[in-house]
Amino acid sequence: MKDLALSKVYQMLEPGPVVLLTTAHKGRANIMTMSWHMMVEFEPPLVACVLSEANYSFAALRATKECVIAIPAVKLAPIVAEIGNCSGRDVDKFERFGLTPKSAERVAPPLVAECFVNLECRVKDTRLVNTFNLFILEVVKAWVDPAQKNPKTIHHHGYGKFVVDGEVIKLKSGKP
Amino acid sequence: MKDLALSKVYQMLEPGPVVLLTTAHKGRANIMTMSWHMMVEFEPPLVACVLSEANYSFAALRATKECVIAIPAVKLAPIVAEIGNCSGRDVDKFERFGLTPKSAERVAPPLVAECFVNLECRVKDTRLVNTFNLFILEVVKAWVDPAQKNPKTIHHHGYGKFVVDGEVIKLKSGKP
Repeated sequence: MKDLALSKVYQMLEPGPVVLLTTAHKGRANIMTMSWHMMVEFEPPLVACVLSEANYSFAALRATKECVIAIPAVKLAPIVAEIGNCSGRDVDKFERFGLTPKSAERVAPPLVAECFVNLECRVKDTRLVNTFNLFILEVVKAWVDPAQKNPKTIHHHGYGKFVVDGEVIKLKSGKP
Repeated sequence: MKDLALSKVYQMLEPGPVVLLTTAHKGRANIMTMSWHMMVEFEPPLVACVLSEANYSFAALRATKECVIAIPAVKLAPIVAEIGNCSGRDVDKFERFGLTPKSAERVAPPLVAECFVNLECRVKDTRLVNTFNLFILEVVKAWVDPAQKNPKTIHHHGYGKFVVDGEVIKLKSGKP
């Protein structure tokens, strides 16, 4: 894992990939699959995300105020879907799916070694948690795996339909 | 344009496409390009989005509390990028880019006839507008163009790099 500049974090999340979110609570690490997230600020990078309060991870994030957002490439898609089909209440998902937890630098939840990007996050604002389950996170440390070249991400369309990144096009734009 | 069930709106936004956002303020319609949005609730569909306060559309959305989110397919990509490169302060973007405004049913801002989905939205919550420029919108009416079959969307990676939807994969998942 290599440092990723905080100023480049948005390039990873803005395209809307399905991500994994790890938490650590009461001595246990857990992972969930998440698609409801967006960038809120470039730098320091702020990210908004929505977690169902039915998710085991919701209580962990609310209590500990820390998480890691890990971005999987398409080769992990079958595992990513399965992670969304079971609960951390019942199973150790790192063990079941053969994923490797790796110590983060600034937060307690683990990185996912198999993901090409890992973002260490702290909860920054909780004003919309009660009404909408919406957390504002600040990315305090970011990692990229240089061994994964041009990783393709996946995008969820509902009920197991995922669209994989396709052609890259370049257009004239001064926008970050 | 055909009715789109509100229960299916999330399938359009969850994958993270670049979208257009229209507003109408002081007798003028305007369009901006937007990538910072996410689903917040399935039904009624709630959407969060972040608009820079430097955008002409920010003041319009804040004042009128109405907008339309229109989803363009890849054939509109060059126009979508150009829309992001100029401001409604200086130019009538519908006219400059040859887009067709179409009356919405429940809100004042226009639909974009060339987009394959149009979502009529009202601002639902403004608590995070001052701090993060973050609006919570409720989709009150949704439209889909049945003539655009299997539209491919685009995803922004920064500075004019866009990734087009590629391969579709189906995985076992009970998740909406």
